[in-house]
Amino acid sequence: MSYQITIEKTKNPKQKPDEHNLGFGIHFTDHMFTMDYTEGKGWHDPKIIPYSPLSLDPSCMVFHYGQAIFEGLKAYKSVNGDILLFRPRKNMERVNISNERLCIPPIDVDFAVEAIKTIVRVDQDWIPKSEGTSLYIRPFIISTDPYLGVRPSNTYKFLIILSPVGAYYKEGINPVKIYVENKYVRTVKGGIGYAKTPGNYAASLKAQMEAKEKGYTQVLWLDGIERKYVEEVGTMNVFFKINGEVITPSLEGTILAGITRDSTIELLKSMGVKVTERRISIEEIYEAHEKGTLEEAFGTGTAAVISPIGELNWNGKIIQINDGKIGEISSKVYDTITGIQSGKIEDPFGWIVKV
Amino acid sequence: MSYQITIEKTKNPKQKPDEHNLGFGIHFTDHMFTMDYTEGKGWHDPKIIPYSPLSLDPSCMVFHYGQAIFEGLKAYKSVNGDILLFRPRKNMERVNISNERLCIPPIDVDFAVEAIKTIVRVDQDWIPKSEGTSLYIRPFIISTDPYLGVRPSNTYKFLIILSPVGAYYKEGINPVKIYVENKYVRTVKGGIGYAKTPGNYAASLKAQMEAKEKGYTQVLWLDGIERKYVEEVGTMNVFFKINGEVITPSLEGTILAGITRDSTIELLKSMGVKVTERRISIEEIYEAHEKGTLEEAFGTGTAAVISPIGELNWNGKIIQINDGKIGEISSKVYDTITGIQSGKIEDPFGWIVKV
Ligand SMILES: Cc1ncc(COP(=O)(O)O)c(C=O)c1O
Ligand SMILES: Cc1ncc(COP(=O)(O)O)c(C=O)c1O
Repeated sequence: MSYQITIEKTKNPKQKPDEHNLGFGIHFTDHMFTMDYTEGKGWHDPKIIPYSPLSLDPSCMVFHYGQAIFEGLKAYKSVNGDILLFRPRKNMERVNISNERLCIPPIDVDFAVEAIKTIVRVDQDWIPKSEGTSLYIRPFIISTDPYLGVRPSNTYKFLIILSPVGAYYKEGINPVKIYVENKYVRTVKGGIGYAKTPGNYAASLKAQMEAKEKGYTQVLWLDGIERKYVEEVGTMNVFFKINGEVITPSLEGTILAGITRDSTIELLKSMGVKVTERRISIEEIYEAHEKGTLEEAFGTGTAAVISPIGELNWNGKIIQINDGKIGEISSKVYDTITGIQSGKIEDPFGWIVKV
Repeated sequence: MSYQITIEKTKNPKQKPDEHNLGFGIHFTDHMFTMDYTEGKGWHDPKIIPYSPLSLDPSCMVFHYGQAIFEGLKAYKSVNGDILLFRPRKNMERVNISNERLCIPPIDVDFAVEAIKTIVRVDQDWIPKSEGTSLYIRPFIISTDPYLGVRPSNTYKFLIILSPVGAYYKEGINPVKIYVENKYVRTVKGGIGYAKTPGNYAASLKAQMEAKEKGYTQVLWLDGIERKYVEEVGTMNVFFKINGEVITPSLEGTILAGITRDSTIELLKSMGVKVTERRISIEEIYEAHEKGTLEEAFGTGTAAVISPIGELNWNGKIIQINDGKIGEISSKVYDTITGIQSGKIEDPFGWIVKV
């Protein structure tokens, strides 16, 4: 692809935030990438410009019909000063999976990876260096027709914004308490669950809030049809270790195909651990606990990499997993993936892309 | 409520579009209503200002997590020059039903109706006068925190924009061909189907496009669990007349509680027609057709009021309803509701609100 990315540098660089108090998604860098789509013309005018507000007509379709998608990945400053990305192509391929479901025209995957590299290079001084910190990369596409009819937009904006983020685990990894959701449903077969699109997150807020009020960090989603099969945990994929075997729900259209999920499966297999992708019911998990064979449970996602589950509450039945402590496999996966991401461990999988 | 709406009139009134070629949701008036919400402060600063672009940070939550809701209603110029609204309180009550599901703080219903009246009054010269035309009113709320964490926003914007719209049926009412959707699902119990929120419309686009490609105007949605029970038709509620009885799907959490649906039920009952709200399966509809008792089928919604269904295609089985012509009940409901809306027919139901 022969797009030329024009670069306009800011004349007013912002002050950088304190690296030890970054939080997540609060601070944004000096620049952003934008590219427009116009029906008949395709994607055009890729450019990097100073980070600035979007000016959109109040009738802009994204406000009304939510035709939009997004992605999330990170850039890491390696121990020897390199800038590393973790499987960025996978994220850009997932853009097109989401786009297809949302009737958004596809992007050029290679070019989009190039765009990520370019914007990260421009704002490289914003990548924090402390242990566990990183530069969160948020590519997203919004529909922009100023029109209130319900149909796919004819114009879109593709943006990439960057946010320096703090360590997810400041005080060591602490397993979380999870509420098995029995009232709300995130999505259903035939729906948009496998796409990374705003509607799925809007649909999840209420369950999340109610779980919080009950003292739980997040919810474990069950399938929308039988309310029986485990799907995801909050905005992460979920894994269970039962009797030495690691099981994760298979991708059947309602679950996001997480890149950390994929990496975890590949890593575990390379370690000789048996990994199975299949439907797994909440009963089966409780039965395994009863029998003493439920050894570990954890979520996987870009933000936390691994989030161990220490407790489940399903209709008032509370179980502790691995005595509420992080398990062996969870630890190993966490250490290996974060080690590869930060360049401390050699990458035998070809996951790392140098900027 | 003692909010004071400040009004800033435009200094550059736009040229009004040709009344005979308005389309839907294309043209917008000179002004818009806006009001902000800030955690701890509540809704504040209601004002009417010149219609103008919104300036939003690229990290604005609505772009990423779709926490938003909207409404749709119309103002009509009556035969004697009055400005009439149709059940605006119902729409503003529905805002709060949607808000509750989306974790958006409630609005004051009475004040919101007042806001609608005020903005319509300010832009009253924009209400078209020709037969069937009206001023479409689009209230909507977007989440505005510049933050990428997944949680409800702490700030929101409530806007009302206005669009003069053309007659839905320029060349008389023509029954439409409908594809019974067998692949995609709009929503499921436990989800957000009963809320008027962007995600539901984003989820519907692909089915709509594929139906169009097959030569159908819209899809008939089936329930997400058994793929058996009829839910809605496109973005309308749906009614079937079988053997003299009018049946419409009951509201069980997956269907929008349409105001035209509610009005249709009330009107039909007042006419002595038996109306039943209950689950109705697509098999039952096909069996009724087989027996010759499927007399009419139609959608109801603010845009078209009534949209008769002339043909259904369910897994390749095509049936014609009422020989593809508009039915007696459909006609009667259409004429009565549009008559009341335009002030041609007296309103015995208390539906009409004068501005
Ligand atoms: C709903 C959902 N599931 C799973 C994941 C995990 O995906 P990934 O590992 O690609 O970050 C995410 C994103 O982080 C998500 O939003
Ligand atoms: C999904 C959906 N169903 C039904 C309706 C009909 O509702 P109303 O009659 O209030 O316009 C609408 C809105 O027009 C809608 O968007």
